[in-house]
Amino acid sequence: MSEDVITRWSAYKYDGRERSSFEDEIVLEYPFTVHLDGEEFATMVCTPTHVQDLIVGFLASEGIIQSYGDIESLSIDKTAGFAYIELQNKRNVNKTMVSKRVIGSCCGKSRQFYFLNDAKTAKTIMTRNQISADQCIALMKQLQQSSEDFQKTGGLHNAALSDASSLLVTRSDIGRHNALDKIYGHTLQHSISMKDKIIVFSGRISSEVVLKVSKIGVGILLSKSAPSNLALELAEDLGITTVGFIRDQRMNIYTHPERIVC
Amino acid sequence: MSEDVITRWSAYKYDGRERSSFEDEIVLEYPFTVHLDGEEFATMVCTPTHVQDLIVGFLASEGIIQSYGDIESLSIDKTAGFAYIELQNKRNVNKTMVSKRVIGSCCGKSRQFYFLNDAKTAKTIMTRNQISADQCIALMKQLQQSSEDFQKTGGLHNAALSDASSLLVTRSDIGRHNALDKIYGHTLQHSISMKDKIIVFSGRISSEVVLKVSKIGVGILLSKSAPSNLALELAEDLGITTVGFIRDQRMNIYTHPERIVC
Repeated sequence: MSEDVITRWSAYKYDGRERSSFEDEIVLEYPFTVHLDGEEFATMVCTPTHVQDLIVGFLASEGIIQSYGDIESLSIDKTAGFAYIELQNKRNVNKTMVSKRVIGSCCGKSRQFYFLNDAKTAKTIMTRNQISADQCIALMKQLQQSSEDFQKTGGLHNAALSDASSLLVTRSDIGRHNALDKIYGHTLQHSISMKDKIIVFSGRISSEVVLKVSKIGVGILLSKSAPSNLALELAEDLGITTVGFIRDQRMNIYTHPERIVC
Repeated sequence: MSEDVITRWSAYKYDGRERSSFEDEIVLEYPFTVHLDGEEFATMVCTPTHVQDLIVGFLASEGIIQSYGDIESLSIDKTAGFAYIELQNKRNVNKTMVSKRVIGSCCGKSRQFYFLNDAKTAKTIMTRNQISADQCIALMKQLQQSSEDFQKTGGLHNAALSDASSLLVTRSDIGRHNALDKIYGHTLQHSISMKDKIIVFSGRISSEVVLKVSKIGVGILLSKSAPSNLALELAEDLGITTVGFIRDQRMNIYTHPERIVC
């Protein structure tokens, strides 16, 4: 895996007194262009690991597919950076619709989605799943231990799917959202039930992160970092428990605290 | 400024033993929709400070304008989150062109731009500007001291324009690229010469960050964080000096080291 994540670069180090040359380990960043039913659909810049997970998760996030079965064929040319997808039901993907913003209270009290595809694919989470605060802290520790490449390069985000006792799938990417899309793509391809699952995440809790977690269908989001207000408003509305700043023995619980047992 | 950056949220704190309620300071995230010549053009999620800088810089980054004079009128409805721009020369903005990927060696030896507008607007930097390693470290310290809101919320990126001796303009945003677009928009509106300038940045050095710095026209990029390989390849080609991991008295110089005097 590592050769898809890291490369080497000749650089200079300055230590406050003098300059010396060294070989640094650098995180890979790779542009991938997705063709959908013969037409160029999007280019994503990503870490080229688990590319199929990424593409499946991305198409689901965008509302292009609902299940893995909606894909008729998928082929990936990793060297050239292209992916070709044919859908079961060819649809005229309306590009304008995908990017048009929707304002207002179409879907709930104070809910404001800024993209129409989000309003279509985000779902309110109703799970009664619970987890203890100590488990939250233990899972975040596991995520950090599993991310060796991050330690090396300092440039990767990590996301994991957990059943509360351990991390089931861990995915890394230079893009925060890509790491989550890789998790999403994996769960779709393996028809994993999301009801009792948890997402453990190294990045900030932005509105886009909350929307992705809602699309994946998970009710508990654990993060090492800070949330934004729009993210919390969406999480409140979408029934998602958000926990931020999980560091050492501490954490902050922002929304739907009933799922965290202290 | 702070009320545009931070809001409050009732949350729970867990300290390893018990849970208590508290008011947390949360970074604002705000969706802004840009209308160009009467048509919806893009929605950006941002920190709603210096919105005019952001929009001018964004339009220049996208290759829609070359100078501030290309804008006939610009009005911002901050409460609703809309901006309306009329251009001097109405052009049929070809949306396909804006997002189409270009592969190959169209612009130079190993240069590979993944968006056509990048190939159009990125420029090779030829400046003989130099800066000492100690100045790099001092400027990064100044950036961190100036970012009080970051300390509070942990959710903002900072970018500053410097003449090597001090920070001339500092801009913050929840989005890394937005912080740079705000700098770009400011320089365009004030016709600031970029030849002897430096960008000081809190975020990672990704390919998009390097492309933005090249569009702004600055030859030296200082960052607290890690670079990616694609960013370094572009920086090498575009003539940009990249310095990463500036922490305490240390730093790594990745490309065009001739501009850093140790």
